[in-house]
Amino acid sequence: MGHSTAVIVGAGSGLSASLARKLAARGHDIVLAARSTDKLTALADETGARCVAMDGSDPAAMAALFSDLPGTLRVAIYNPSARQRGSIADLDPETVRRAIEVTAFGAFLLGQQAARLMLNNQTDQGRKGTILFTGASAGVKGFANSAPFAMGKFAQRGLAQSMARELHPKGVHVAWVNIDGGIANEDRDGRRDDGNDNMLHPDAIADGYIALIDQHRSAWSDELVLRPWVETF
Amino acid sequence: MGHSTAVIVGAGSGLSASLARKLAARGHDIVLAARSTDKLTALADETGARCVAMDGSDPAAMAALFSDLPGTLRVAIYNPSARQRGSIADLDPETVRRAIEVTAFGAFLLGQQAARLMLNNQTDQGRKGTILFTGASAGVKGFANSAPFAMGKFAQRGLAQSMARELHPKGVHVAWVNIDGGIANEDRDGRRDDGNDNMLHPDAIADGYIALIDQHRSAWSDELVLRPWVETF
Amino acid sequence: MGHSTAVIVGAGSGLSASLARKLAARGHDIVLAARSTDKLTALADETGARCVAMDGSDPAAMAALFSDLPGTLRVAIYNPSARQRGSIADLDPETVRRAIEVTAFGAFLLGQQAARLMLNNQTDQGRKGTILFTGASAGVKGFANSAPFAMGKFAQRGLAQSMARELHPKGVHVAWVNIDGGIANEDRDGRRDDGNDNMLHPDAIADGYIALIDQHRSAWSDELVLRPWVETF
Amino acid sequence: MGHSTAVIVGAGSGLSASLARKLAARGHDIVLAARSTDKLTALADETGARCVAMDGSDPAAMAALFSDLPGTLRVAIYNPSARQRGSIADLDPETVRRAIEVTAFGAFLLGQQAARLMLNNQTDQGRKGTILFTGASAGVKGFANSAPFAMGKFAQRGLAQSMARELHPKGVHVAWVNIDGGIANEDRDGRRDDGNDNMLHPDAIADGYIALIDQHRSAWSDELVLRPWVETF
Repeated sequence: MGHSTAVIVGAGSGLSASLARKLAARGHDIVLAARSTDKLTALADETGARCVAMDGSDPAAMAALFSDLPGTLRVAIYNPSARQRGSIADLDPETVRRAIEVTAFGAFLLGQQAARLMLNNQTDQGRKGTILFTGASAGVKGFANSAPFAMGKFAQRGLAQSMARELHPKGVHVAWVNIDGGIANEDRDGRRDDGNDNMLHPDAIADGYIALIDQHRSAWSDELVLRPWVETF
Repeated sequence: MGHSTAVIVGAGSGLSASLARKLAARGHDIVLAARSTDKLTALADETGARCVAMDGSDPAAMAALFSDLPGTLRVAIYNPSARQRGSIADLDPETVRRAIEVTAFGAFLLGQQAARLMLNNQTDQGRKGTILFTGASAGVKGFANSAPFAMGKFAQRGLAQSMARELHPKGVHVAWVNIDGGIANEDRDGRRDDGNDNMLHPDAIADGYIALIDQHRSAWSDELVLRPWVETF
Repeated sequence: MGHSTAVIVGAGSGLSASLARKLAARGHDIVLAARSTDKLTALADETGARCVAMDGSDPAAMAALFSDLPGTLRVAIYNPSARQRGSIADLDPETVRRAIEVTAFGAFLLGQQAARLMLNNQTDQGRKGTILFTGASAGVKGFANSAPFAMGKFAQRGLAQSMARELHPKGVHVAWVNIDGGIANEDRDGRRDDGNDNMLHPDAIADGYIALIDQHRSAWSDELVLRPWVETF
Repeated sequence: MGHSTAVIVGAGSGLSASLARKLAARGHDIVLAARSTDKLTALADETGARCVAMDGSDPAAMAALFSDLPGTLRVAIYNPSARQRGSIADLDPETVRRAIEVTAFGAFLLGQQAARLMLNNQTDQGRKGTILFTGASAGVKGFANSAPFAMGKFAQRGLAQSMARELHPKGVHVAWVNIDGGIANEDRDGRRDDGNDNMLHPDAIADGYIALIDQHRSAWSDELVLRPWVETF
């Protein structure tokens, strides 16, 4: 099928690195996009990835990213999200607006650009391409004091459902993944793996994404939940 | 309890008119806000309502509306939504952004302003106030070729859940109403009642809102679905 | 409309008593059915209700109950449920079977008998009759160490959805009510109202049932959640 | 880890055959149970499976099946279900009772027996064992004129959720799989693959089950939906 490309927007040191490694090992050319690419140098060297500094919620930047891809786009993944905790009475409206844009509007921009390209792809092994959104349980249940994250993740899930209902019959696979728990080994929040698998391992999440990408079109999932064995739900 | 005020944002000739009449009949001072108040003159005369021309997704305008209310705010209702149909590939990003702002960000602005006031209210008959969001089945199921509406209504539902989980224990009642069907007698789309109740009657919806407002705090609903008897679901 | 009858199966001293009083006050002839009617004497005297001792999960008994009603059946309510807590490994299979029968199979029996009668009713104020099932959050979320209750309440909810989709277009209203919290003043478990409304008041629940019964057919709910303001969800 | 055993209850010529072949190829000893084993001879020869004739809703038969397994039970799968279409008014109560027993009570019996054994297993690659229930969209949405199937599948889903919440922290993985569409190449109903993947291929479903079995415990799914690309949902 010639060169096959996978785009990951919202690339960091945890989940995105696992995804980049696994997708590169499967023969995809990797494109990593993030607001800052400073920390991606080692990963780019390791995976041969192209790195692009961009704001995922900027329509022009997203269009530019997809206008200049190597090979045939087969996989597109959107990771960014913004959360701000606080009582509904205390939230800053502009921060709320920004959170929705980062989590949901950017997801739409990636989904639209990926769909435009993939719909023109040749069908390969029953599929034209796979679009995956990294969600959270906040997209299923709106938690107290977390309205911006709830709004963004709910909107992202609604987007994914709408896209799946439109695009599945056109041969493009779309799924929203509910990452229901903390991710191990990520830098943020000082989270660390305690060796007991009580947080999601990036490689375990990435395996879930790969399983979605490999699904036969007669048995596609539009949603998937991944949760540590010890997580309350 | 002195003068009690009900604010309805997104006021038109259908549901909002029924709500205004029923709430006025219960003794509330009514404030109607809409982008254009031209068509609200008769309703204002009938219900004694104050009319305010404003954009519900403008933070400053929403703040101004709530800074200048008569009496004690007991009821706040948010109706506006924007829908744009189209394939994901064909949607205009700025229209999508605007749809999310009208449907969801404006709902947040109303919810925040109402919560700030209501949290300071005296508890009356077990409640400090009621905040209601007019939703749709698009907030539960993302339909094909309708991503902007899905994103907005999902986000609005996530907002309502987050607010309910925070504010119910503080004495403010929040609910999201899924209006699952067309509304009869509305001007838009040429919809007309065919006498067979196959679309929701504005008065029937308003009765549902009133039932929520009257709920005892030991038995509050955070979501309510209203659907014509003949509607497929 | 001549004499109108309301049947309540699973009648006790809490919710059912509130329902019986409110429905009797609205002019319904009341029929109370329970495995034991010993405790219903005072309520029957107060409401003029007929009392029937029966097992709600017995097809013949349910058929007999509905074969001999006064007037026109307009309201039918099913309350019984059985819960047994325990690790999945420790549960007694016969107890599990019985729990499903009490909670879900009995609900089917009532639903079937009520539907047969109501479908032949004259439409009155837009409806032929209303069938209500008393559910619980266990029908939406399967809790650990509570499989029999989860199975029964899930099955009951599936029944109600199936019946609503069939019967709403035929003029019979069906709804499943999620009572998401403890009920105050009930004898079982020593539950008592602490004056803070942290458990559902039977009268508040009954008001919710009445609101469903009164809904105009252009705006019917098939599910309703009722939850104390301070309940975590 | 010595001999590892996989039990499949409700074994036929479609999904179960694919599961048996894939699990046998991974080194599991296979035990196939069905009401009639007449049609399983060729499959048993091919996979080396032991065949057991039994009724999955019979507590004694289920206990006997699990009391006499070779090796260590690592996988248990429950497939049987009963559906009966018809108006709620026309259904035969005993058929409804039986449908619930086949679809849901039998699932409980398998789940209980499997849990008892697996909880005593040594943890291998992070898990003691995997229990999978074959569900359907009828467990998420109660369709009209299909109450028995809705009740059974809803109950089965509630069971799976309850078991997942209890057993995941104990090291046993439980998942409910929503097979949302017709299965290709099955004998019943004259269903046939039309070469267009518009029905689920048994091998594609089985791949989904294997992906669940292989999930790392830091990222377990408790539910999975599998749906043909062209299926309306």
